[in-house]
Order: sequence, then structure tokens, then C-alpha cells
Amino acid sequence: MIAQTPEPPYYAVIFTSIKQHSAPGYADTAALMLTLAQEQDGFLGVESASAALGITVSYWRNKAAIRRWKLQTDHQIAQQRGREAWYAQYQVRIAKVERAYGFENPASAPDDHV
Amino acid sequence: MIAQTPEPPYYAVIFTSIKQHSAPGYADTAALMLTLAQEQDGFLGVESASAALGITVSYWRNKAAIRRWKLQTDHQIAQQRGREAWYAQYQVRIAKVERAYGFENPASAPDDHV
Repeated sequence: MIAQTPEPPYYAVIFTSIKQHSAPGYADTAALMLTLAQEQDGFLGVESASAALGITVSYWRNKAAIRRWKLQTDHQIAQQRGREAWYAQYQVRIAKVERAYGFENPASAPDDHV
Repeated sequence: MIAQTPEPPYYAVIFTSIKQHSAPGYADTAALMLTLAQEQDGFLGVESASAALGITVSYWRNKAAIRRWKLQTDHQIAQQRGREAWYAQYQVRIAKVERAYGFENPASAPDDHV
């Protein structure tokens, strides 16, 4: 669930959102967009969590890959629908990952936690 | 709940984590760290969501501010405790926010969603 990304540098798109009270059709489209993003050239990984606030961070090889995904036709339609019907508010931040490090507890096999 | 950050460039620390099944004392320390981070020079904002995966993105004026917070004494103790007792796994990514844009639905007053 934590994305396995290569050594920096690479890019992150930090998408934070607050949904409307009712967002019919959102879940299906979100699942489809995830599948399509994963098929894009330059896609490196994604991490997502949502409570009152939703945060999805997707990782990309470079800015060109992000731009292609932004302009992908199905994604464009989903973005339009998102503004019209799903999101009360969102923020997109494009950031260059310069450094990364991690920790894994030797007593906690990943299988216990997925 | 979506952080009000200045015009880029600024920095983001993307912290993604999977907690152990039991993490006694975690919530209190997390709340304290949030308070202390907000008091740090160069702190710009924070966004957090957690489900199976926890994602906290904090925003900072520059890398020096991030470094100072990493080395802050109480935070160092919390990091140590995190590795010993709370986290099964985590990843920290330091990224320079180059571009940001947002959307707010005119029909959705922020007060309805906070």
C-alpha cells in the first residue's frame, strides 16, 4: 500500500479534496481512473487515504507523464464531472521528490498489514 | 482542512505509514507533534487522512525548516518511539512544490464541509 518508487528524483501529484455530501458515481469513476493511470507511461505508483479529507498522491517519472495523464480523454471527462458533481473543493500540487527514505519494522512482516 | 499555502515554490513532506495493530500512546503523541510542528518557523500547513494507510502531508517554507523540525527534540523522541512501537512501515518523501491550483464549487460553502 506504500508505493514502491525508484530513487529520486521523480514527481508527485498531491491531490487533496473534500467531496460533496452526495457524489453519485464517484467510486466507480475513481476506480476506473486508478486503473487507467496505472496503464500510463511514466506512472510510478499511488497512495490514497480518505476520511473527512481525501488525499491521493500519485508518483510519476517526470512532468511530461503528468501532463499526458492530465489530458487523457477519459480523465478529462472525469475531471469535468468532478467539478460539476463530486467535489466541494480540491487542491492539486505538483512537486519534485528530491529525497526519500523509509522504515520497516523487522518484527512486522508486510503481509500482516495489507 | 485543505491547507492554505502560499504561491509555490515551497516544500512538502509526504509521510505515508502503516501502523502496527496496536499503537498505545500514538494518538496523544501525534496530536502533540501537530501542535509543535505548527509552532515551528517555516511551517506552512498540514493535511492528513488515514484509513488502512495513513498519509500526512506537511508544507514548509524551505528545506532548512524541514531539517529543524526533524531535529527538534520532542520530535526526535517521537520518531524513535514510532520506530520502536507504532509503525509497521513508513516512507518519507521530501518534495519541492513547483505548481499548485485548486477548485472550489461555488454552490458548496466551505462551512458545510468542515
